Amino acid sequence: MRIDIITVVPDILKSPFEASILKRAIEKGLVEIHLHNLRDYVTDNYKQIDDYQFGGGAGMVMMIEPIDKCISALKAERNYDEVIYMTPDGETLKQGMANELSLKENLIILCGHYKGVDQRVREHFVTREISVGDFVLSGGELGAAVLCDAVIRLLPGVLGNETSALTDSFQDNLLAPPIYTRPADYKGWKVPEILTSGNFPKIEEWREEQAYERTKKLRPDLLKDE
Amino acid sequence: MRIDIITVVPDILKSPFEASILKRAIEKGLVEIHLHNLRDYVTDNYKQIDDYQFGGGAGMVMMIEPIDKCISALKAERNYDEVIYMTPDGETLKQGMANELSLKENLIILCGHYKGVDQRVREHFVTREISVGDFVLSGGELGAAVLCDAVIRLLPGVLGNETSALTDSFQDNLLAPPIYTRPADYKGWKVPEILTSGNFPKIEEWREEQAYERTKKLRPDLLKDE
Repeated sequence: MRIDIITVVPDILKSPFEASILKRAIEKGLVEIHLHNLRDYVTDNYKQIDDYQFGGGAGMVMMIEPIDKCISALKAERNYDEVIYMTPDGETLKQGMANELSLKENLIILCGHYKGVDQRVREHFVTREISVGDFVLSGGELGAAVLCDAVIRLLPGVLGNETSALTDSFQDNLLAPPIYTRPADYKGWKVPEILTSGNFPKIEEWREEQAYERTKKLRPDLLKDE
Repeated sequence: MRIDIITVVPDILKSPFEASILKRAIEKGLVEIHLHNLRDYVTDNYKQIDDYQFGGGAGMVMMIEPIDKCISALKAERNYDEVIYMTPDGETLKQGMANELSLKENLIILCGHYKGVDQRVREHFVTREISVGDFVLSGGELGAAVLCDAVIRLLPGVLGNETSALTDSFQDNLLAPPIYTRPADYKGWKVPEILTSGNFPKIEEWREEQAYERTKKLRPDLLKDE
């Protein structure tokens, strides 16, 4: 998989790809991440990539031309499955969307910044608009990092233990059951006895019950989706 | 405002706070961010911070003791409004929650990693559990960065133009209207005429209509919340 990220602040995105699981996925050659600084696609001397809104109002708008140039240069080299625009009014990211995107070959992710991009970019270049949630960030960069993380960890070979991702929350529309590790007694706070019983069928049963009970209590909406 | 972030991979979190709006907010003294490496709170020689699950199963669990030590050390120095745990089964982050948290003084954010923390940490130390959305990330670090960004940009003085955040999506339960900047004609794709009319009351009216229409089409659920 190859992901090209277009941004006006590539610096924000450095460390998320240089540590932990994403770093190892890149080192193993399971994914390529390419950061593109939109300012490299500007022809004027001021390196202008944003301008005031037509009609007035606070906040700058990202101009169409540098974005057009960057996306066109990328598309000239290979086919892309999606040109994704990170924006708070996009389709909300869910686990199912991450699963689906993890099957793609080449993705472009365009990060909005300031008030966002000129609407014509969305109409003519973007194929999919994604939001990480109902809140506003200072730019699409952290949203892009979140999206990449959610997708890349699903690629075969990225997580050490293949079964690990399958027992995560949401993969079966249930929250994960509570988990415990040593010590069995910490300051008098004890691990549930069932977990140290060695009775694995019973433990599985307990975990399923807990997952269901937690979901019913905390996120009943997830149960209704089925 | 002061935010203490507890993590096993502080490296992931470096660049998001060293660029753009978050960097400037820190430089202006509007917020302090302190990253704490959980390994610094381990006493044994192996710097062990995780262990196998009781009852078996894939994935490691973060141990209670180093977390207890870190949180207790912080609490000995000042009062905290919340000890937040980033977890996919937490309360989903929304703009209203970001608004609310932006009024706090001191926050601790604990980032889950691997399969998450020992359940006893959640029962005895955590006051609030927050998820950035219905998807799983390789750790809570990017979620913490998203939460910090959403909150910090609301602090007075962080955004250059105070009115800028108020016209963002979600602040009035409506998506933002489409925005345009120069050139007015790009490859034959034109800006809506109303926006270059100079008739500002009409422009406001058009924007309100567009915001409402977009919300009705893309996110009817937001209109029902009111």
